[in-house]
Amino acid sequence: MDTLTNDLSGLNDSEAAQVCALLRARLIDTVSRTGGHLASSLGAVELIVAIHRVFDTGRDRLVFDVGHQCYAHKILTGRNDAMETLRTFGGIAGFPKPAESVCDAFVAGHASNSVSVAVGMARARTLQKQDYHVLALIGDGALSGGLAYEGLSDAGDSGEPLIVILNDNGMSITKSVGGVADHLARQRLKPQYLQFKKGYRKVMSVLPLGGHIYNVTHKIKTAVKETLLPCSLFEDMGFTYLGPVDGHDVKGLTRLLGYAKELKSPVLLHVRTVKGKGYPPAERNPDRFHGVGRFCVGNGEPVQPPKPNFSAVFGQTMCALAQQDERLVAITAAMQGGTGLDEFARRFPQRFFDVSIAEGHAVTMAAGMAKQGIRPVFAVYSSFLQRAYDMLIHDVALQQLHVVLAVDRAGLVGEDGETHHGVFDPAFLDTVPGMTVLCPSSFAELRSMLSYAVYQVNGPVAVRYPRGGEGTYTADSAPAPACILRRGSDITLAGYGSMIDPLLDCARRLERYGVQAEVVKLNCITPIASDILLESLRRTGRLLAAEDSAPSNSVGNRLAAAAARAGIPLKGLALADTGPGFVTHGTVQQLRHYCGLDGESLCRKALEVCGHGNG
Amino acid sequence: MDTLTNDLSGLNDSEAAQVCALLRARLIDTVSRTGGHLASSLGAVELIVAIHRVFDTGRDRLVFDVGHQCYAHKILTGRNDAMETLRTFGGIAGFPKPAESVCDAFVAGHASNSVSVAVGMARARTLQKQDYHVLALIGDGALSGGLAYEGLSDAGDSGEPLIVILNDNGMSITKSVGGVADHLARQRLKPQYLQFKKGYRKVMSVLPLGGHIYNVTHKIKTAVKETLLPCSLFEDMGFTYLGPVDGHDVKGLTRLLGYAKELKSPVLLHVRTVKGKGYPPAERNPDRFHGVGRFCVGNGEPVQPPKPNFSAVFGQTMCALAQQDERLVAITAAMQGGTGLDEFARRFPQRFFDVSIAEGHAVTMAAGMAKQGIRPVFAVYSSFLQRAYDMLIHDVALQQLHVVLAVDRAGLVGEDGETHHGVFDPAFLDTVPGMTVLCPSSFAELRSMLSYAVYQVNGPVAVRYPRGGEGTYTADSAPAPACILRRGSDITLAGYGSMIDPLLDCARRLERYGVQAEVVKLNCITPIASDILLESLRRTGRLLAAEDSAPSNSVGNRLAAAAARAGIPLKGLALADTGPGFVTHGTVQQLRHYCGLDGESLCRKALEVCGHGNG
Repeated sequence: MDTLTNDLSGLNDSEAAQVCALLRARLIDTVSRTGGHLASSLGAVELIVAIHRVFDTGRDRLVFDVGHQCYAHKILTGRNDAMETLRTFGGIAGFPKPAESVCDAFVAGHASNSVSVAVGMARARTLQKQDYHVLALIGDGALSGGLAYEGLSDAGDSGEPLIVILNDNGMSITKSVGGVADHLARQRLKPQYLQFKKGYRKVMSVLPLGGHIYNVTHKIKTAVKETLLPCSLFEDMGFTYLGPVDGHDVKGLTRLLGYAKELKSPVLLHVRTVKGKGYPPAERNPDRFHGVGRFCVGNGEPVQPPKPNFSAVFGQTMCALAQQDERLVAITAAMQGGTGLDEFARRFPQRFFDVSIAEGHAVTMAAGMAKQGIRPVFAVYSSFLQRAYDMLIHDVALQQLHVVLAVDRAGLVGEDGETHHGVFDPAFLDTVPGMTVLCPSSFAELRSMLSYAVYQVNGPVAVRYPRGGEGTYTADSAPAPACILRRGSDITLAGYGSMIDPLLDCARRLERYGVQAEVVKLNCITPIASDILLESLRRTGRLLAAEDSAPSNSVGNRLAAAAARAGIPLKGLALADTGPGFVTHGTVQQLRHYCGLDGESLCRKALEVCGHGNG
Repeated sequence: MDTLTNDLSGLNDSEAAQVCALLRARLIDTVSRTGGHLASSLGAVELIVAIHRVFDTGRDRLVFDVGHQCYAHKILTGRNDAMETLRTFGGIAGFPKPAESVCDAFVAGHASNSVSVAVGMARARTLQKQDYHVLALIGDGALSGGLAYEGLSDAGDSGEPLIVILNDNGMSITKSVGGVADHLARQRLKPQYLQFKKGYRKVMSVLPLGGHIYNVTHKIKTAVKETLLPCSLFEDMGFTYLGPVDGHDVKGLTRLLGYAKELKSPVLLHVRTVKGKGYPPAERNPDRFHGVGRFCVGNGEPVQPPKPNFSAVFGQTMCALAQQDERLVAITAAMQGGTGLDEFARRFPQRFFDVSIAEGHAVTMAAGMAKQGIRPVFAVYSSFLQRAYDMLIHDVALQQLHVVLAVDRAGLVGEDGETHHGVFDPAFLDTVPGMTVLCPSSFAELRSMLSYAVYQVNGPVAVRYPRGGEGTYTADSAPAPACILRRGSDITLAGYGSMIDPLLDCARRLERYGVQAEVVKLNCITPIASDILLESLRRTGRLLAAEDSAPSNSVGNRLAAAAARAGIPLKGLALADTGPGFVTHGTVQQLRHYCGLDGESLCRKALEVCGHGNG
């Protein structure tokens, strides 16, 4: 594997192809043991090798979009051994990360930002009279996001030398949907302008009276040209368009990248790749191998069968509700499988809308539906909902439209790390006027609360639930806005969602120290269900609030403010949260411990609040 | 003016043209007395009349984008008399507002949402087997926003009958920038595909050997067609593209809208208009007449000359800083004039970047610049910054990049009303990890704090300042994070930004009641400068926090939580803010009073906190 850590600029084409084969084998081997985003990385092997042959990623800036395609790049930039630790606590991240390597130019994780970053970098380079190259590597799926379009529009307009590589596998995360996908599909089918022009001249020159006709048709030709030139939106935007080119021909890619490198203008290089390339199970089923757990290399079967999870329960509940209610529709932004909507899509195709990676549009489109009497449910990962913040305020809240948000991946999500934790939604959803935020802790509660959100709430409402399965708490305390799970007189422990298990664990541990904790479970965090909690605080005088969310505008802070407003003096107060920064990757269990949100850490904190020294 | 309130469906073409003339005169007359968005509305008169001839806006859904073009529509839907109250407190709004009329299908104010709304409405209509028509009216400026692209992409893909009217005045708010503008510009210049096809056939039929050549070139023709078809991105997206058509020919517009109405598919109607049409001063200077104060109809001159304002001070300070520092750049999202950057753009064109209406891109592009050593300052209105929330977290904060946000129009903005108040930024900026938020209350402080933000802060930093001019407070207390403006022992009054004048007024009023108020001015609200304030609270035991922002995660709530965490028991606590909903339009003074944020209202509230009965 030594070749995988070497400079590739000196390789010839057949050596480069050999490196690709080695990389591919390495990727399949490691990801089968660590899990990860295999299919995208397999599809981009030749592209990454070609980039490394032509560019110096330690100096030139290669900006990944989303970053699923970065594994081969990691291997080639000194992280081959570290691949064994991919996405594990303390190991390397599954996404590009500048803190890991100078060769990772920028963070990635949320789709569609790469071109904007690259434009900024290219302008910075030019303003400072430096001479490095800037590349953005973006998949066709990420191209559906509005930010990509804003970036491309400005990039073309800027005239800055930069290279946008469009890795077009025709897939997106599930499948490309929407107009741009169609546009690309046609681009793939049709002959290019330059080829046509060449052919036209050739035909004209061999025709009888060719010269004469050439003149006569000059006017037409001019018209044709003027009409043809804008054919490629990219060319109109100001890009030199190259491609489409076979993304698994490392020789051709290298040549074209070398050509692009010489152009002193914005270049768009359209590369066609096959997702999962080189590993038959992934080629056959690229969706399943997009983000995959550990699997058997021989047959591609997962090592562990999938367990019941909140997303699946959500999907089942949606089907049950839709069966009864023709006005219910489901919306996803390219996350049909991930949000558990496969069966809904199959059973209710007319009421299922995959808008591609376009969360802002999903929310505003839902607002339009709600305004006209439909009941839209938008299923979205918490961290991606951040992109629809203004739409929630402007298009939904201003008219108090009844849009239901099914906020999946709320709280710590585990191996995807910093860019994917759903730790901001309790804070930003609370700032949306008239919003209701419900927090199930069990499958049963998800069922009740989703139904409650659809039928009992007016205005915007979110049901937020964690990634994965439920814990030991499986009861259903909905629709009570809050409830006391355990009585005690010494301290109030408050939490919601996936924090209930750790809090109950904490309460049991506190017993050993003679501390009787009262556990208050909040089912509704916006508007905050503070009545039961304030009552409890009047009795105990001490509060420990625990949440796997960020501290700003946290439920704990809101409870503290509510206590102050209610004039309840507190003898002790502690807020446990994910801390002010971003949380790394690892298992949810590890990260909970790391953030001090497991039962043991919470117990220590509660003892401090109770003045028990260090326990 | 009676004709302006009638059903237009029965008019003939010349009567319709007459209505247009009446509308135009009415618009110029009323806006000269009320102020408002004149130029856009003048440009859309024929379009609005044609829409009203063909559609029933009480039943069909006409979704405006931004809504600057809606004045004629308001006049034609029963609000002719109410135009005298345009944008005044208690009067009609300057934007479409469903609460005002059933003919206003949806709210508008923030650009680029109309197509998404229309797609949602069209789908709702089809699912419910209803038969109304859905139209989105979007300007070319709004087309630069990523949301518009997401909406168009899904609209085309949906196959739903709906009509997107692109009102192309080639202007945006200042001028169109970016690739799509170029695309449209070329569309305007080039002959259309169908025209070309017709011409080609004609030429071929009269040529010698025409028939023969027709066959020979059939292959070429097919190639041409395949290449031409995607010419229009819109056609590729799934739209039937109609136009471009003269937007001031009411007869032609009516005919084409009638045709579009019959098509059972997504239609894009490309209309070319002249901003400010029919009023020579506005045609000559459409920028100045985009949003205009009261003016003299005779010469177009403003009734009152502009006063010094925060935006101008910002622009001057930027020029001064740029003079000294080659690494400083300014970014705007189509608000060059509004943010005070005209002179900067003129003096430092290489370091000035107008990215068009694309706030998300502006932030991410700035992040790319900052990563490579440039010092970007993005000047943006508070309410529009909401669209870059995820970019602030993902692209800026995760790497703690030094991006400076100049947040203009912070707090209550006045006549633009609900969609434009900058009342959410203190809350959402606080949730961005590592963010610093500075709040100047005077021109002098804006100068100091901007310089401090550029040179003394690391990581993301915002300087937020109000619309308009400074008040009686003109001192400079920066860079202290907080300071005591007035000593007192009975109650602590805390505030920031434009609340300092009302708080000082409140303190003076309280004196008459024998209450000695301490006024604490917060210069930094994130991280919150609570030390001085908590000290003050320990002395006074009472707090009134006042801010022209929304209540969720307000500074007042954060101070209350900080007091609880610090174990300071409060004898009295009140939070004054803009209230949980959206604030209507009016002068800032009127709105302050309406929200209870003027000196008199605050005094009443402070007396309650002090237990002085009802004062």
